[in-house]
Formats: sequence, C-alpha cells, structure tokens
Amino acid sequence: MTQTDHSTAFTRRLAGFAIDTPPCDLPAAALDLARLSLFDWCAVALAGVNEPAGRIVRTLVEREAGRPEATVLGLDERLPARAAALANGTLSHALDYDDTHFGHIGHPTVAVLPAALAVAEQSGATGGELLAAYLVGVEVACRLGAALGPDHYRHGFHQTATSGSFGAAAACARLLGLDVDTTSHALGLTATRASGLKSQFGTMGKPFHAGMAAANGVEASALAALGFVSRPDGIECPQGFAATHGAELREVEPPAGRYLFEAIQYKLHACCHGTHAALEALLGLRENHAIRPGQVSTVLLTTHPTWLKVCDLAQPATGLEAKFSYRLTAAMVLAGVDTAALESFSDATCARPDLVALRDRVEVVADTDVAETAARVEIALDDGRHLVAEHDLANPLPLANKQAKLQAKAQALIGAETAERLWQVIAKLELGPASALAEVLRAAGPGITR
Amino acid sequence: MTQTDHSTAFTRRLAGFAIDTPPCDLPAAALDLARLSLFDWCAVALAGVNEPAGRIVRTLVEREAGRPEATVLGLDERLPARAAALANGTLSHALDYDDTHFGHIGHPTVAVLPAALAVAEQSGATGGELLAAYLVGVEVACRLGAALGPDHYRHGFHQTATSGSFGAAAACARLLGLDVDTTSHALGLTATRASGLKSQFGTMGKPFHAGMAAANGVEASALAALGFVSRPDGIECPQGFAATHGAELREVEPPAGRYLFEAIQYKLHACCHGTHAALEALLGLRENHAIRPGQVSTVLLTTHPTWLKVCDLAQPATGLEAKFSYRLTAAMVLAGVDTAALESFSDATCARPDLVALRDRVEVVADTDVAETAARVEIALDDGRHLVAEHDLANPLPLANKQAKLQAKAQALIGAETAERLWQVIAKLELGPASALAEVLRAAGPGITR
Repeated sequence: MTQTDHSTAFTRRLAGFAIDTPPCDLPAAALDLARLSLFDWCAVALAGVNEPAGRIVRTLVEREAGRPEATVLGLDERLPARAAALANGTLSHALDYDDTHFGHIGHPTVAVLPAALAVAEQSGATGGELLAAYLVGVEVACRLGAALGPDHYRHGFHQTATSGSFGAAAACARLLGLDVDTTSHALGLTATRASGLKSQFGTMGKPFHAGMAAANGVEASALAALGFVSRPDGIECPQGFAATHGAELREVEPPAGRYLFEAIQYKLHACCHGTHAALEALLGLRENHAIRPGQVSTVLLTTHPTWLKVCDLAQPATGLEAKFSYRLTAAMVLAGVDTAALESFSDATCARPDLVALRDRVEVVADTDVAETAARVEIALDDGRHLVAEHDLANPLPLANKQAKLQAKAQALIGAETAERLWQVIAKLELGPASALAEVLRAAGPGITR
Repeated sequence: MTQTDHSTAFTRRLAGFAIDTPPCDLPAAALDLARLSLFDWCAVALAGVNEPAGRIVRTLVEREAGRPEATVLGLDERLPARAAALANGTLSHALDYDDTHFGHIGHPTVAVLPAALAVAEQSGATGGELLAAYLVGVEVACRLGAALGPDHYRHGFHQTATSGSFGAAAACARLLGLDVDTTSHALGLTATRASGLKSQFGTMGKPFHAGMAAANGVEASALAALGFVSRPDGIECPQGFAATHGAELREVEPPAGRYLFEAIQYKLHACCHGTHAALEALLGLRENHAIRPGQVSTVLLTTHPTWLKVCDLAQPATGLEAKFSYRLTAAMVLAGVDTAALESFSDATCARPDLVALRDRVEVVADTDVAETAARVEIALDDGRHLVAEHDLANPLPLANKQAKLQAKAQALIGAETAERLWQVIAKLELGPASALAEVLRAAGPGITR
C-alpha cells in the first residue's frame, strides 16, 4: 500500500468526524436526503419483512431471545440491539430495493440505519440524535467506500458489507456518546470484523451482508464502550483493512459544506441498481416510439465494464437471478412488464417464452466511455428503424420530485395508510424520541402481508 | 486464482468429510491428541477467564442475555450458543497459551472447540459426539489453513480467525446433523462472514478473533439448518474466499489414515508460539552450560522470515507485547525468568534494567533455510566461548510425555484439583453427555482467581 501523509490517522479522522460534528454543522441538503433515505428504508424493510433471508435470520435471533432493547420488524417482542440490527439489516436488503451510492459502490442505508435505529432505541436517543447519527454514519460509509474505491470492489468485496460495517460502527459510537479514542477503537475492531464477498450475489448471502454490517457496528461500538482495545489505526495501518482488502486509500473529499452521501440514488425498479440506467433508457424509447415487443430485431445495451460481473446473468432461472440480468430486465421493459413491481421478478417471468425469445435478442457490451451511472441502448426494429437512447442516473432530480416518487413507491409497497403514518413520524422526527419511529415499524410489521 | 480440477467442489468435499466420517474411521492417534487438546483448552480457558478481552466480551453477552443453551466460562447462567462461543473463544485465546498448528498457521482449537462445546450442550450431544465433532472441525480448519497456505497469512490474514471459522462451522454442522448440501451452505455462508487481520496482534483484537470464528461457525450452521441459502462453493468459486483473501487453493493431503491435525503443538511457554523453538534452544544451552546472564556478550537468534512480522517486537513495553518479542523472551530465559509462568509477562518485566540490557545484546535474523518450526541460537560469552544450538518443535514427542507436560501445565494454571477433575471427565468423555464437561467448566470458572 502506498501511504500518503494525508491518509495518516485516517481511522481517527473518520472517528472525529462521526462524533464531533455538531448538529448545526450537518448540511441541510444532506439532512433532507437522510430523511428520504430513512423513509425509503422503512418502506422497503416493511415490504421485505417476510422475505426468506430475513425471515430465517429473524427466526434465529427470536430463538436466541435476550434483553428487550430494540425493535425487530415483524416481531412483537424487542430483542438485543445487535440481534435487531442483524435481522433488520438482512430483511431490509432482501428485496434489493433500497438506496444505492455509486461512489461508495454499494447500499449504505441498509447497513447503517438498522444499527443506528437499534442503538437509538436501546439508548433512549431522541429522533434528532437518530437522524444525525444515521447521517454521519452513512457519510462515513460513503467516504470509506470512496477511499477504498473500485479496486476493492473489483477484488471481490461487497462494500455494503465492508464499508457499511464502519458506517454502522460510527453511527452507534455517536449514539453511545463515545470519545474519539474509543470510537477509533470501535472502528479498529470493525477493521478485523468486516467481511462480505460479491460472489454471494444471487443468494441470501447478499442481504445477510447488510445485517452483518449493522450487527458488526453495534457489537464493535458496544465492546469499545466497555473498554475493548483494538488498533485505532485499523483501516490504514500496515496489513490493516485497506491493504489486506485490495485497496489503496485514496481519499475523496466532498465539496465544502457538502457530503458525499448527497449523491444517494433511490431505486424505482425492483432489481439491481446496475440495470436501472439501461431500463430508464429503454422505457423512454418504448414510450416515445410506441414499440411493440414483436417489432424488436435486436437490442444492443452498452454499460460500464464494472457491471458485467454484477448484473449480467444471461439466462436467469429464478426471480432473484432475474434481478441481476440485463437481458431479461430489458426484455421485461420492452414487453411492458412493470419492473417497479416486486411481483414481476419471479421464476415464472424467467420462464415466459415471449420474454425468453426477446431476452435472447439482447446483447450486452461494455465500454469504459460509458459512466458507471449511465447506459446506452440501441434498438433495431424489423421495419428498419434504429433507435438510440442514453440515460444517466447521476442527472439531478429536484428534492420534491424524489419525495413524491418515494411516497408513491412506499404506497405501492406498504399501503397508503402505513406510508402516510411513517412519513408523518419521519417529517417530525426531531420532535420526539427515536422510539416513536420504532413503534410505528413494530405496529406495521406483522400486518404486511405481500 | 489457478484452479485445478482437484479443487473443484472443495467446499463440498470439506462438508462431506465433516459430516460423513463415521466415528470408527477417526484415526486413533488423532483422537488421542484431540483429547489432549480438549484438556489443554479447558485449562487455558479457565486460567484466562478473567483476562480483560474475555471479560469484556463476556460482559457484553451477559448484558444481551437470552435463551440458556450453553455454558460461558465465568458465569453461572447459560447463554445462547452463539454468545457462549463468542465469549469462550475470546477468553480461551486471551493468554495466547493454547495449541498451535504450523501447517494451519494458527491456533485451531480456540476457534473450533468453543463452537463445538456450545452447540453440543445446546443440542444435547453425547461426549463422544462432541469429541468427534471437534476432531473433524479442527481437521477442516487445518486442511483449509494448509490449502490457503502461507500466501494468505503473509497477505495479512489471521488463520485462527479465517480458517477457524470454517472449522467451527463444520463441527457445528456435524453436531446439528446437517446433510452435505446444508453443510456446504453453512461453509459457503462462512466464506462471506470470516475475517480477521494479523495487524490486530498485540491488541485485544487477537483473542477476539477466536471468539469471532467460533461465533461465525455457530451462526452459519444454525442459519443453514433453518434453510439459509448461500454459495455452496463459497471457498473455491470465482471471487470466493480463497481468491479474495490472497490465496490459491493448494490442497495438502494428509498421509493415508492420518489427519493433518496430528501435527498439533502445545505451548509450554506463555508467549507467541513463534518464539518457542528459540526459547527451547536457549533453555538447552543455559542448562547444559550453566550460563549466567552476566557472561553473555551477544546472542544471535536465527528464525524463519515468516516470524519477523509476528513476534519480533524489539522493545516491548507491556506484558502483552513481551509475548511477541524474541529479544525480551530470550533475555528472560537467559536470566532464569520462568517463561512458562503467566505472571512473568508483565510491564514490570519489560522495564527490568537487567533484562533490558540483556535484550539489547540479542540480534534477530531471518534465514529461509531454517524451518518455520525451528530456530538456531548462537551465544558468545565473555570468556570466549561460542555456543550454538538448534531446536525444531516438529521433532516428535511420545503421547505420554505430552500428556504429562500438559497435566503439569494445567496444574500450574488452574490447580491440581480442578485439573484432575477435568482430566477424569475428558478421559471418559464418551461415557456421558457433553454437558458433563460443561458442568465442570461452569463449576470451576468463577473459582479461578489468578
């Protein structure tokens, strides 16, 4: 590892940022987005409450039982904060419908928020303290993810799990009122606990990564609070987390007064975020040119090479695999299947002859000139027309539009009434205890019966 | 990663070995040693029951509480199996006095046994089932450790934590009666959960690695038993555990009818195993030549390069650092300090002027011609004598000698009475339930007051 002077005490600087940033210094734009992410997480987590991966982890922690500290979605009884983080992290990522950050290269909220929510409830924090802890934690995850960079991801690590663990630990450290030294030990302990491999994609291992990260954060911060001593420079030290996990540490600074987190993206299709730019481009062409599936001769889909290892399953057979298939999701869009609906991703969809025929006319190629957030699609029709469109998810969308889209998504996922109740609590989060949000989630959980 | 045909389905073959090996096929020599390792683990764990790292982890799991399934050393109340594994793993490695396997490059028992013991108690296993599960689990850890090899270790990973997690999962899978498919999923899930960095050496992170590994094994096997689906080829698949953790997978086959585990080594000095060959060589010279510390001009200590990153702290300041210092431990032996006694490794020892003066006359060099299990020492005395000795820990010692040495060690650590009670239970382990051993440990734990 090449170390610059700047990267000295990287771990300690993350710790200081996490616990010393006063609430008045949190950027307003970042706070607005944090509130949206919190709302979106609640909707996606409730919608996924009975997905197999989350249900299994919940069964495990329910069986272990323990001190009633924190809410587990889908259970009436509270469980220890670590257990709640493990279960809620897993179930909230089970649908793969949660937010994404392309600089972090992962899903930061499903790792950080379950940890922050559990420890906020455990420690009697206010709603404002929860929001602030979540925001600094998710920013730590984004800053570390960006610093570890694409090399770490290409090497095979899943940032949701790895950087997510550090973000979760940072959020918990703030909620527990740890000092900088103690927080550095919590992050240093996280350095030896964090794990998670991309090769688990397409299995229950992927959503479990979010639970692992959240639980790692709760556990590491609790141990540090009890006096556990680790390497306070655990990320940047020789044979530390960065050096052993395929990464140099290249710090990415946000613009002054901004957070990296502000580039957060929300999923409006119920599949891997890597497919979304292509799906948006295809949707645009289909709507603008009234394409019928039978007209399509070939589709050429150009994406950044990064995604070929992530979501280019050529012949998906299960609903879960379908979420990671450019070819099938492209066919679904062209055939008018609603890719925003969870139900669309099924084994039956994978087997539909018309979709398979369309899928087999889609070719996927990579081009480093295409941004990681973008895609280009070219459709050749049997009447000789050749249509081209590009879409870049990084193009900005006003906050009000995001909020409206997320409210519509939440209504579709958990019903208008629960969505509205959640939004009311989150909009006024600073006015009450963090447990008020947990109460709404606990009340809604068992009633969700998708 | 270069993959040979042989390494295809590596994970599955480990799973099959772990669960399908009938008790009658367990090698007698390996079973004898398994019993010794079990006994040594109990003594070392009880002696370490109040060490800070273990005490902190125990405080955490005691606070979390939960279903009374398994014994935690030092507590009257039982806790969930995962929690017991986390605490017992950590406290049993806190003294760094447990067994070592140089092919595995780590400490296999502190990862595997706490998991096996907890799940045996949880599931009502017999003593014979516990012994068999521990043996196949520890053999899985050794085979995987050997297959990951020195590259994995050099890359910065601590095999006690990494390979140990797989061994723990394998032992638990056997105790839970899982089939091959389910066990493969447990190992596949372990592939994305296992972690642990050598850069934590000298901190509480190191003993925590054993607890992490044991808890990983309990959790992964429990989730697989509940239907959790992971990558059943999680170790050898592209971007699987091996490829992402600095290792090719080069299988090391034991001789027919033997286990790799049979090369297990027991610590008779209370410090890093890497120092032991040198200390044995120095002890031999001191005894044979009646060396007085004042006579020593220089000491040249030659070791395998692997160890320079592990136990070559030049100027240790704390008792924990002293355990990883060739120079200071060499000075201790030459000055007649008992390196077998736990109390010898203290901050005060590090500060003793006579030891510091002697320490500063020790030079450490590396030579690839020296085996990893061996060391060469050369002492120049002020009367002109030049003494040379070599010691190789791999030289065999009869079982009866090992047993006698371990019984003496246990008596020194936990008193003759507890040592004898433990030995009686372990010698007849197959005649009763596994919980009989847990009972002795629970009864003895709080009384240990080193």
